Amino acid sequence: MAKESFPLSEVYGLLEPGPVVLVTTADKGRNNIMTLSWQTMLEFEPPLVGCVVSDRNHSFAALKQTKECVINIPTAELAAQVVGCGNSSGRKLDKFHAFGLTPAPAARVKPPLIAECYASLECKLVDTRLVTKYCFFVLEVVQAWVDPAQKSPRTLHHRGRGAFMLAGDTIKLPSKMK
Amino acid sequence: MAKESFPLSEVYGLLEPGPVVLVTTADKGRNNIMTLSWQTMLEFEPPLVGCVVSDRNHSFAALKQTKECVINIPTAELAAQVVGCGNSSGRKLDKFHAFGLTPAPAARVKPPLIAECYASLECKLVDTRLVTKYCFFVLEVVQAWVDPAQKSPRTLHHRGRGAFMLAGDTIKLPSKMK
Repeated sequence: MAKESFPLSEVYGLLEPGPVVLVTTADKGRNNIMTLSWQTMLEFEPPLVGCVVSDRNHSFAALKQTKECVINIPTAELAAQVVGCGNSSGRKLDKFHAFGLTPAPAARVKPPLIAECYASLECKLVDTRLVTKYCFFVLEVVQAWVDPAQKSPRTLHHRGRGAFMLAGDTIKLPSKMK
Repeated sequence: MAKESFPLSEVYGLLEPGPVVLVTTADKGRNNIMTLSWQTMLEFEPPLVGCVVSDRNHSFAALKQTKECVINIPTAELAAQVVGCGNSSGRKLDKFHAFGLTPAPAARVKPPLIAECYASLECKLVDTRLVTKYCFFVLEVVQAWVDPAQKSPRTLHHRGRGAFMLAGDTIKLPSKMK
């Protein structure tokens, strides 16, 4: 994917539809990937994203300690990798190597982008008040990258137990909503 | 829609795909509806949902004061009503009447279900720690209703400015993920 810098003011439009994402972290030089569906926008600009990273996940400690991650958005071609990353632990496995994914350097944070994902959002952790109770992290997106060729990305939307709804057609209605 | 009681343990599968929802509140006997896309699961069971209800919305005060709401999930047939509710304010308008939607009594809370939506989640507000900073409310789903005939509901997923991705086909991959 040939990703280009993307306006931060438009990031909400990537996450509002609710795609499964792949979150990358880097701890002591070791990259990891986790599959995530529990995230929401919290603010338009600067874009804030809230997400749940369970303390049962290897990524929890990396995110809490390094305060950085990248939210990568895959399309349907990566369904097997999405499930693979969700069913394995970075404790034992180099997921980039195991699932044939390519780390690419980020501009503002240490964790890598996933080259095969059509969008990548570099994030810094800005609020940990709900981490203890809900494992809920508030992230600020500081740099966004999108492949401009992907006008209607066929994102994956988890329905539970390996069932994924695939993004269908887009309709447009007259609206004053942002 | 002929909705039936739905197991609370399965609620996450309704919200994980990221559909636009219609949130109903009731304040001093006046029902209101707001369109929302900024929500995420926070816990499987009891199901906890986090959502952003802006303090610019008429529903903000009702939710904060009554501590109850219903999250209703519409399908594509209701696209015009979803946009209508998002583009108007309950300050001036009875949205049920204006958009031809039917309030139906809930079992555990005062705000009504929307009869035309295929799923409705009765919620109680359980944590307000992030309300001041992010307008982020933590809700517990106490009763869920789903139309069992809707196996692959054609939900709406907001991409911004009135563009909605329509839920497409569902694929199933072998997975250990819940």
